Amino acid sequence: MEKSDVVIIGGVAAGPKTAATLARRNGALSITLFQKEDLLSYGSCGLPYFASGDIESFNGLVETSYGIARDADFFENIKGFKAVTGAEVIEINRDEKYIIIKMLKSGETIKHGYDKLVIATGANAIKPPFPVAESSKISSFTRPDDAIAFRKAAQTGQVGKVVIIGGGFIGCEMTEACAGLWGIETVLIERENQIMPFVLDKEMAEIAKREMTRQDIKVLTGAEVQKVELDSDNNPVVYIDGHAPITADYVFLCLGVKPEVTLAKNTGLTIGKTGAIAVNSHLQTSDDNIYAGGDCIENKNKITGQPFFIPMGSLANRHGRVIAENITGNKAEFSGVLGAFLVKVFDTNVGAVGLSQMSAEKAGLKTNAVWGTFPDKPDYYPESQVFVLKLIYDADTKRVLGLQAVGAGDICRRIDSMSALLQQNATLDTLIDFEHGYAPPYSDALDPLHHLAAMAKSGFDFISPLTNDEKDAYLWLDVRETSEFEEAAWPDEMKNRIKNIPLGKLRSRAKELDTGRPILVTCMRGLRSYQAAVILKQSGFDNVHILSGGFEASQQ
Amino acid sequence: MEKSDVVIIGGVAAGPKTAATLARRNGALSITLFQKEDLLSYGSCGLPYFASGDIESFNGLVETSYGIARDADFFENIKGFKAVTGAEVIEINRDEKYIIIKMLKSGETIKHGYDKLVIATGANAIKPPFPVAESSKISSFTRPDDAIAFRKAAQTGQVGKVVIIGGGFIGCEMTEACAGLWGIETVLIERENQIMPFVLDKEMAEIAKREMTRQDIKVLTGAEVQKVELDSDNNPVVYIDGHAPITADYVFLCLGVKPEVTLAKNTGLTIGKTGAIAVNSHLQTSDDNIYAGGDCIENKNKITGQPFFIPMGSLANRHGRVIAENITGNKAEFSGVLGAFLVKVFDTNVGAVGLSQMSAEKAGLKTNAVWGTFPDKPDYYPESQVFVLKLIYDADTKRVLGLQAVGAGDICRRIDSMSALLQQNATLDTLIDFEHGYAPPYSDALDPLHHLAAMAKSGFDFISPLTNDEKDAYLWLDVRETSEFEEAAWPDEMKNRIKNIPLGKLRSRAKELDTGRPILVTCMRGLRSYQAAVILKQSGFDNVHILSGGFEASQQ
Repeated sequence: MEKSDVVIIGGVAAGPKTAATLARRNGALSITLFQKEDLLSYGSCGLPYFASGDIESFNGLVETSYGIARDADFFENIKGFKAVTGAEVIEINRDEKYIIIKMLKSGETIKHGYDKLVIATGANAIKPPFPVAESSKISSFTRPDDAIAFRKAAQTGQVGKVVIIGGGFIGCEMTEACAGLWGIETVLIERENQIMPFVLDKEMAEIAKREMTRQDIKVLTGAEVQKVELDSDNNPVVYIDGHAPITADYVFLCLGVKPEVTLAKNTGLTIGKTGAIAVNSHLQTSDDNIYAGGDCIENKNKITGQPFFIPMGSLANRHGRVIAENITGNKAEFSGVLGAFLVKVFDTNVGAVGLSQMSAEKAGLKTNAVWGTFPDKPDYYPESQVFVLKLIYDADTKRVLGLQAVGAGDICRRIDSMSALLQQNATLDTLIDFEHGYAPPYSDALDPLHHLAAMAKSGFDFISPLTNDEKDAYLWLDVRETSEFEEAAWPDEMKNRIKNIPLGKLRSRAKELDTGRPILVTCMRGLRSYQAAVILKQSGFDNVHILSGGFEASQQ
Repeated sequence: MEKSDVVIIGGVAAGPKTAATLARRNGALSITLFQKEDLLSYGSCGLPYFASGDIESFNGLVETSYGIARDADFFENIKGFKAVTGAEVIEINRDEKYIIIKMLKSGETIKHGYDKLVIATGANAIKPPFPVAESSKISSFTRPDDAIAFRKAAQTGQVGKVVIIGGGFIGCEMTEACAGLWGIETVLIERENQIMPFVLDKEMAEIAKREMTRQDIKVLTGAEVQKVELDSDNNPVVYIDGHAPITADYVFLCLGVKPEVTLAKNTGLTIGKTGAIAVNSHLQTSDDNIYAGGDCIENKNKITGQPFFIPMGSLANRHGRVIAENITGNKAEFSGVLGAFLVKVFDTNVGAVGLSQMSAEKAGLKTNAVWGTFPDKPDYYPESQVFVLKLIYDADTKRVLGLQAVGAGDICRRIDSMSALLQQNATLDTLIDFEHGYAPPYSDALDPLHHLAAMAKSGFDFISPLTNDEKDAYLWLDVRETSEFEEAAWPDEMKNRIKNIPLGKLRSRAKELDTGRPILVTCMRGLRSYQAAVILKQSGFDNVHILSGGFEASQQ
């Protein structure tokens, strides 16, 4: 039986990263990696962008920046470890410390011993809870083959209409991939009542959904698929509760992924309550000699302290490093995750870090939130673009719990800075102490995070952009200039309901609002409303609310 | 004598911000602001972009985003305080708590009492240490009039050639303003041996200087101006030690600014060792009833703990909020500054946060540094751009001291995240724990900060991109592919000196390097060199050094 010091199962992200780091730290180690597929270390997060044609050649996903394929030779000659492809590990024997591998081409079965084992088996597409016909025109989207097959079909004009089932990250990315470059008629179906459920709060997801609608995507939320069948031409037909069936040339099942834990489970390793492999902070499983990393493990959420399943290529790479450090004797910890993510939805950037308000409430926290619409550079600078931010914080302790961002402007910078701030258990005061880089071509004198923290500290009642459904509860006050008010494309019913007093006249005309009704102050982005609320409060009104983020966020 | 609860001297950034926050917090306060100039609250950092024509109308700098001028009416009706312009404060009487104001139009002198006084007198252009002729064609660049006069002259084709004396932030911004849109022949003169001295280390400044040279700017560093005279046509002539005199149509003196402390000094307030007004963490001066903020005060550097003069509009705004909180009884602290900045130099973005390596060494710290050239998105994604980063850290404690960034890629995001990390006294491990937002359209699976921290922890000797001047000390090893090596536009002398062994062949050919000389490993961006150094070390070579950041940073 051949034996290596370290054996790694899985060759996409966490596996190769572990192996390469191990080989760098200790050139004397023998390291063998087994990968079921033929491809190694491919940029799996780039697959939607290969499908879309944004990335021209598939090679881009499997080559280094200097054009060398990341194949077994590359890993042996450059990175210093052995990678075996087409090799499915089918058993782990922990007592005798070996694994059994089935070589997929030859069908041969071999045993390979280890001192330390690393499980990086990734995640698989979740199987649909409804019946789905067998067809090459119906597929999930997790493997290179899925992307290659679709692109071939799209390129040769065989795809006129696509239905995507599932509005999570991959579903949203695939929506753009289909409709963007290929101009395919695209329908996105999501069972929950919003896209990107659980990770984005509904009012923020609505902004991204509006962008999809602008791009002629039909988005059905709260829509339960019953079955996917084939019609007499062998085209897929999607049946949806309460909707007419939709016939398409291609159907993508983007229902998310679940951790691949079969091997771990069969060998008796502890599986966490999220269904992923349980690990300690050194990424050790319940067997000291077995580590695990990447999409198959359970992370700790840094904010709630609870187990958290979050498959993400960036975390997989960071897991790899931590595992290698520990195996080579340099104690390293993986302290947990904050849940930072970014998704491109056509011209709208979407991202978040920390908890959504919904997740925070579910975790038993008492939350508060403020929203703001901000330009990413000073308004006077050309090419400034806006985005909407939502800051979620603990109503009692003022600890910051999360930030969500949607818009055309540069949100990445804010998601990353907030992530760095949350790494230190940020409170509202930490945000106020944040020192951003400032110069007019890049940013404004105060960062949006400063404004959000000041709003949160102000004690005013900032209400969600979604709340404008509850029109009757409030006397609506629009404090924009009269010309802006008049240019607004209100439905008549709305226009009659809203009172317009420009901010500059509010001090003198405040008494006109003395109706006893609660006042909802509105403007374009929310900053004028904040100032108006101050004026009203100082004029003796005590039931004043602010439509947070303004019309830009609520799109009234 | 009229009297206000709070009197504020200065109306550009810290002054109006203090006044507006005060009025929001306590509507019952009487607040009066005196401003010497006619304009209030103008975006002074935007002046170079008005001069360049990037910002079309001057109104952009004095209006809110919804098109309302920030004049005395705006502040009275909307923000709730009184602003008096053309009003120069000429004396502070601390015993009797009043100030004397000279009304510049009428020449009248008035007394105005205060309970709390706020000094926000800003900074003034440093007077040149060499003789300068009086002329409308020679000016500093700190006031709106400077920008308006230049733009008028440029627009009417009166300016064919400009000399800018001083290569700091404003000098660099003005270089782009002149040459960029107006196509003016521009010469930049800096006394130190690099542009942006003190804030950027020399090898990083060299990258920005190369961009200027590519844009046909003549940059003279280490060049001491002797005098600026007028020729017989009344055009300015700049005399420089060791250079031929340069005649121009316009000369800008951008020698930096010094805090305006005359009033503070005359009334006996403590002036710090930087020459700016000394304040405590509540931004109180040595007189409890007098606060100061903005460009006239001395900040505490968060990393060294030492006093630090850093005039910056973003800090001025944050000072204003802290002063207002303290005056209204909500104890607030300004914890110090990290020195974050951003500057646009044509198509190159320049920024830093924390200490430069030079400043850190001056402050008595024992430092180490690593450099890297990174794409701002995955290489396979279209439109990815590179930048060079330098990470400076304490050689003993591994505390991170600073980050510098230069390049076409998105540096803002990295400067801001690093600033947030430095807010918590980051070490190399803090960087490794950083969770950035990842998706291929925006970023790579590992953030550049992760790579830099891993390099710093590796124990290898990363040497500065500047060190390639010392060609003879090393056996140069280029580990790029042979085709890349051959395409390089080396001078012959260099080509003969460099040995090329592609990284993939290094394990088998390492013995060819057995010359006993120290080896300097090089490649395009530095990552291959790092891997090559690992291979060499594991092959028994112990005198291996890495040209950090690669040829891209050193531009060999």
